[in-house]
Amino acid sequence: MMIEKKIVTIIGLGLIGSSILRAFNYYLKNKFYIKVYDNHSEHLKVVKSFNIADEICNSVEESVIESDLVILAIPVGVMAEVGKLISPNLKKGAILTDTGSTKLSVIQDLSSLIPEEVFLVPSHPLAGTEHSGPKAGFHNLFEGRYWIIISKKNDKNGKFLENLFKKFGSNVEFMDEFYHDKVLAITSHLPHLIAYSIVDTANNLESDLKNDVVRYSATGFRDFTRLASSDPTMWRDVFLNNTEAVLEMLQRFNEDLSALQKLIRKKDSNELYNFFKNSKEIRNKIIEAKQHLPETSKLK
Amino acid sequence: MMIEKKIVTIIGLGLIGSSILRAFNYYLKNKFYIKVYDNHSEHLKVVKSFNIADEICNSVEESVIESDLVILAIPVGVMAEVGKLISPNLKKGAILTDTGSTKLSVIQDLSSLIPEEVFLVPSHPLAGTEHSGPKAGFHNLFEGRYWIIISKKNDKNGKFLENLFKKFGSNVEFMDEFYHDKVLAITSHLPHLIAYSIVDTANNLESDLKNDVVRYSATGFRDFTRLASSDPTMWRDVFLNNTEAVLEMLQRFNEDLSALQKLIRKKDSNELYNFFKNSKEIRNKIIEAKQHLPETSKLK
Repeated sequence: MMIEKKIVTIIGLGLIGSSILRAFNYYLKNKFYIKVYDNHSEHLKVVKSFNIADEICNSVEESVIESDLVILAIPVGVMAEVGKLISPNLKKGAILTDTGSTKLSVIQDLSSLIPEEVFLVPSHPLAGTEHSGPKAGFHNLFEGRYWIIISKKNDKNGKFLENLFKKFGSNVEFMDEFYHDKVLAITSHLPHLIAYSIVDTANNLESDLKNDVVRYSATGFRDFTRLASSDPTMWRDVFLNNTEAVLEMLQRFNEDLSALQKLIRKKDSNELYNFFKNSKEIRNKIIEAKQHLPETSKLK
Repeated sequence: MMIEKKIVTIIGLGLIGSSILRAFNYYLKNKFYIKVYDNHSEHLKVVKSFNIADEICNSVEESVIESDLVILAIPVGVMAEVGKLISPNLKKGAILTDTGSTKLSVIQDLSSLIPEEVFLVPSHPLAGTEHSGPKAGFHNLFEGRYWIIISKKNDKNGKFLENLFKKFGSNVEFMDEFYHDKVLAITSHLPHLIAYSIVDTANNLESDLKNDVVRYSATGFRDFTRLASSDPTMWRDVFLNNTEAVLEMLQRFNEDLSALQKLIRKKDSNELYNFFKNSKEIRNKIIEAKQHLPETSKLK
């Protein structure tokens, strides 16, 4: 192939992978040669119809040949499996990154597999919607959202990714895998777990009541169902791969909920008021920090 | 006063009360004579500045004199207290309604207080935002939202309220107080309780981590903080007044969460997948039922 451009391979064309492909096409048109692969043939078909990838690959092994940058946008549960398949073909000097929600597990799964002269620099875009699949993607999914890179701030390859993700509109932060997994356990994994759990509680109600839960869901419950409707494979893998941090946060949550339950049972008016009052502070900080969704990813 | 119009009194000018006032002004301009009262003098000042109430009253007792319809838009915890003050002045044949989130307690608190020839018809608009106070109100808060009336469908006074609330754009449903409190326990009260609880868990984290929770809140946690930022007095009163139904739903939720916790601890891949997969169904039903917020009440 007579190309001067750097080669990028995107493996996995779900919401995140297809959004990365779109972001390359939108923000960096023709700057890279983009190869894509997905093990769902329908996903490949859909992405082919977009006509924005330079090459649709038929095997994951071949997709990484000569690539300067390989992006694994796949569930964290299949990192080891895919890592094994691609590692013999990874180019010397290539950067291998991923977009998974757990980082310690990704490092454990991949670091022993990949050749010495390939640079593993895990990353995680804190972006998503409740929709999955290549049709759900959009080019500005990462705009104004954090993209965490697991490397030292002055690492050459980390810097390369930083520049790239900034082109997609992301705010880049560097941290280690342990801290990442802890932060995500409380900001994302536990909220999703709880949301799934309360939806399950509603699902188990007698049928009249269950229908009325749907009917009157706008009073709070609906927000939980949005969280509890994203990709089940992804979430299964998150909880299998960030088990320790999630169980720790869940333990703390259970203690807090039990204390609250006791206040309700005792009808402790003063303490209940204080409890409800205190949480406003953290909300105000979030509003100051402007952590809201971009328009395009809002609920339809 | 030489007026032919029916007189309406709105007591309590927070988000709900001030929105009702605005709705009267917008949809039924000059059709009723509207008197308002609030025990916060600043609220009265704010509402006076809107210049849409016919009369700003200085005492709650006097506010109901000659009124054909009295609307208590006050926390459920003060229903009895306010009921005592107004009952001697309630007009024969008047309808007394409220907007509280618990209905059994309102009936218990008011029914013995009010004169025999006054009609108590409790109601509950399933509408709100995370903001409080008279400035937070808007005339179409009730548009497309359910407004539940606690009466028989063919009750004359229930019908009067139905016609009124439909003018505000609401979908009216009739049910009894017991069923209402159960439905609200699972669709609203429990989700809010859990949201408050997880925000508390985050609040109790060591300070570095806590700051990063705010920073990275867009990954799920933010949705909880929105739920956990509405009026603390209102929520305290809800949990003091719907204790039994809430504790029952909380018990069920705890059982479901424990089961899920066990699956994570055991790393039960298949069961976790099934768990996450099942909850999509209820979400899809909600989307079909179009239980989304009107544009104006979306997050700013």
